[in-house]
Amino acid sequence: MTDQRRLALDYASQHRVDFLNALKELAALPSVSTDEEHKADMQRTAAWVANRLKGLGISNVNIMPTGGHPVIYGEWLGAVGKPTVLVYGHYDVQPVDPIELWKTGPFTPTEIGENLYGRGVSDMKGQVMATLNALDAITHSGALPVNLKFLIEGEEEIGSPSLGKFIADHKDLLKADLCLNPDAGLIGKEYPTITYGLRGLAYFELRVYGPDHDLHSGLAGGIVHNPAQALAELIAIMHDQNGRVMLPGFYDRVRVLSAAEHEDFARLPTTDEDYRSDLGVRELWGEPEFTPAERTGARPTLEINGLLSGYTGKGQKTVLPAWAMAKISCRLVPDQDPNAVYTQLKQFLTAHAPKTIRWELDKFAGAPASITDLEQPGVKAIVAAFETVWGVKPYFKREGGSIPVVSQMQVMLGIESVLTGFGLPDDNLHAPNEKLHLPTWYRGIDTLIHFFFNL
Amino acid sequence: MTDQRRLALDYASQHRVDFLNALKELAALPSVSTDEEHKADMQRTAAWVANRLKGLGISNVNIMPTGGHPVIYGEWLGAVGKPTVLVYGHYDVQPVDPIELWKTGPFTPTEIGENLYGRGVSDMKGQVMATLNALDAITHSGALPVNLKFLIEGEEEIGSPSLGKFIADHKDLLKADLCLNPDAGLIGKEYPTITYGLRGLAYFELRVYGPDHDLHSGLAGGIVHNPAQALAELIAIMHDQNGRVMLPGFYDRVRVLSAAEHEDFARLPTTDEDYRSDLGVRELWGEPEFTPAERTGARPTLEINGLLSGYTGKGQKTVLPAWAMAKISCRLVPDQDPNAVYTQLKQFLTAHAPKTIRWELDKFAGAPASITDLEQPGVKAIVAAFETVWGVKPYFKREGGSIPVVSQMQVMLGIESVLTGFGLPDDNLHAPNEKLHLPTWYRGIDTLIHFFFNL
Repeated sequence: MTDQRRLALDYASQHRVDFLNALKELAALPSVSTDEEHKADMQRTAAWVANRLKGLGISNVNIMPTGGHPVIYGEWLGAVGKPTVLVYGHYDVQPVDPIELWKTGPFTPTEIGENLYGRGVSDMKGQVMATLNALDAITHSGALPVNLKFLIEGEEEIGSPSLGKFIADHKDLLKADLCLNPDAGLIGKEYPTITYGLRGLAYFELRVYGPDHDLHSGLAGGIVHNPAQALAELIAIMHDQNGRVMLPGFYDRVRVLSAAEHEDFARLPTTDEDYRSDLGVRELWGEPEFTPAERTGARPTLEINGLLSGYTGKGQKTVLPAWAMAKISCRLVPDQDPNAVYTQLKQFLTAHAPKTIRWELDKFAGAPASITDLEQPGVKAIVAAFETVWGVKPYFKREGGSIPVVSQMQVMLGIESVLTGFGLPDDNLHAPNEKLHLPTWYRGIDTLIHFFFNL
Repeated sequence: MTDQRRLALDYASQHRVDFLNALKELAALPSVSTDEEHKADMQRTAAWVANRLKGLGISNVNIMPTGGHPVIYGEWLGAVGKPTVLVYGHYDVQPVDPIELWKTGPFTPTEIGENLYGRGVSDMKGQVMATLNALDAITHSGALPVNLKFLIEGEEEIGSPSLGKFIADHKDLLKADLCLNPDAGLIGKEYPTITYGLRGLAYFELRVYGPDHDLHSGLAGGIVHNPAQALAELIAIMHDQNGRVMLPGFYDRVRVLSAAEHEDFARLPTTDEDYRSDLGVRELWGEPEFTPAERTGARPTLEINGLLSGYTGKGQKTVLPAWAMAKISCRLVPDQDPNAVYTQLKQFLTAHAPKTIRWELDKFAGAPASITDLEQPGVKAIVAAFETVWGVKPYFKREGGSIPVVSQMQVMLGIESVLTGFGLPDDNLHAPNEKLHLPTWYRGIDTLIHFFFNL
């Protein structure tokens, strides 16, 4: 180990209180991006992050406007001949509702036992601060061993509506060799994890129309095909008994898992019981020939995200509704195409919708799945860092969700992302009582110190 | 024809303008019972009706308080040895939403061609005024030929929550030989109609619970049985391919139609195409071995009145919802029991709900179906009246809806109702542009004059 790396690690272990206090400061700022009332808080939070970057000696720190909340940019390009890492993060957080279920103030970061509680402490202010603290430790030990650029956005929790255009408009500014994206997490505190696959998304709204106006269920019940019932009948046959999606051709382009990938999945330590209790369900569900990790990581899905029809208030109203609506989305895996899935759903509806009703299908923004190249130097650097700190080979995971910025970086900037992070599955992301496991977070800071030196 | 009857009919034909103006006055009062803001309008409307009764020489006219909107009572008991008719009506109307679809002001009664447009002109201020105008004509021709009592409520459009208790508390006051209830209608303007059967109701709310909190559809999609999907799967098997309800034992107590009843149904002039275009559906639906009139009148149903789950706003949210809800109601026919249907639905859910989810079923107020005795003198009097005015034998219809007051009168007062009225199927009840066909209404006034003399 070099002396500088040793010094940086020592600095980190001696300044944990400072690191934690910095995170508490940031997490106390209510940067809820979806809420207009927090617009000023968003600006204060962006300013806080920008100042922190300046404090690390980062230059050209700039709070750059977008159509929505601003992006913080910064760079340090003094490591001649070394790679440039684009650090991605977001400073916005989810709303706090239902506020009454919080045991501590969501913006009063509070330590209880080994955890810090507060909105955003795990997703992802804690991850941003793990990175900045690692860099703080390194700068106190000498010069930075790599070049850095920062892209910290304020709209991740509302779907990053401005990010694609921002990246497209600033391709030269953002030019880098790889991206560090610590917005993923560990599968367990003893299981360092690299997320290398993300599912894509195709999102639809299906509306089924029956009579041309709401009817009295007494007068018309028995002679009209109720559109809520017709919608249910269509939804019910979108999966077979084994949880397989029945859209025609849905699996035609699904890339078959290799034996090596099956082995990586089989190595994942999460048990069915872990999944069951984390999700709070009675029993797991889905394609029996795949493990839960494979089903969420490497298999496509079709989900009902919303249902609406007729009367939904308290008590009773005897309406036979004129229409019924379902929000339906598919998670996609390589090499599925969102537009092809749209066509498949239309074909399914054309084949199965009864003549008693009329249907309309709207398509929202979709994105294909992405897979990170595991042979890139960034992945090797984080693998070695995890092995040093945790003492085990990290786990390779495909995540069920979609992180559009990963494919945007691939497509627009031509760079791969190192997707990792130090949150845990029980961190209550997007829910009340979000928390961060501090011993894991400190290990994460050490891991990132190694990562930057390993590059 | 007696001279007095002739005089009354002449009076009616000479005073149509006055009759119409009286209806316009009443229909201009916005007596929307569901809306707190119209509470004063409700009182003004009750006062208007009470004054009208007094103008007819009715005594003991009284606006009687209930827990909700008041009931108007009145009586005239001067026809010694003659039967007593309890006239039922309601002075409240439906809300006017969506107001933007009205072509005339809902409370500015407006004649266009042969129709009068306005909220309540058909349901049922027009029917109340047909009755009061008929009595007005009779009183101008001599003494009333029958004894009369009036029960005009203000809560029919909100489910008559106070009526049951009112009747129970005033059994002696309301004692009568029969009830005239003109709150039904004609099946077509050339088809005078007597409604002799009403379906009952059993209303439920079913909630299906999956994970204990909303999940991210990317992270959990593929391993969790989505409760919206599970609810759809349950709803889809509540009917078979032929529209038959699959609750265990649902049809066990359904009274089989007699040959005579089949004949009455077969005589009804409404064609499938009439139903299809009135309802605004592409095709009719339901049990193929029964006619549409039988399916709505004499067969029980199960309808989805509402669906709610997950995200239902604009655009997309990738939630895997924690729960899904359906409002479900059954229309019942003799001799089904609402409580038995509740048990049947619970049995169905116990048998078919998968182990991946949990369910809860709430029961709302239910009512059994009712059938009127066609041999009663009241029915014979209205049959003869229709034959005189229309020149055809009236049609006997079972109605799909529920009018609880009919069974309340049967059970609490021991009297049968003559259920008729002069509205038409295209009167837009409960919808924008409610209207009343005036030539039919004038015939209705004549019919009621005959009815009172026929008793």
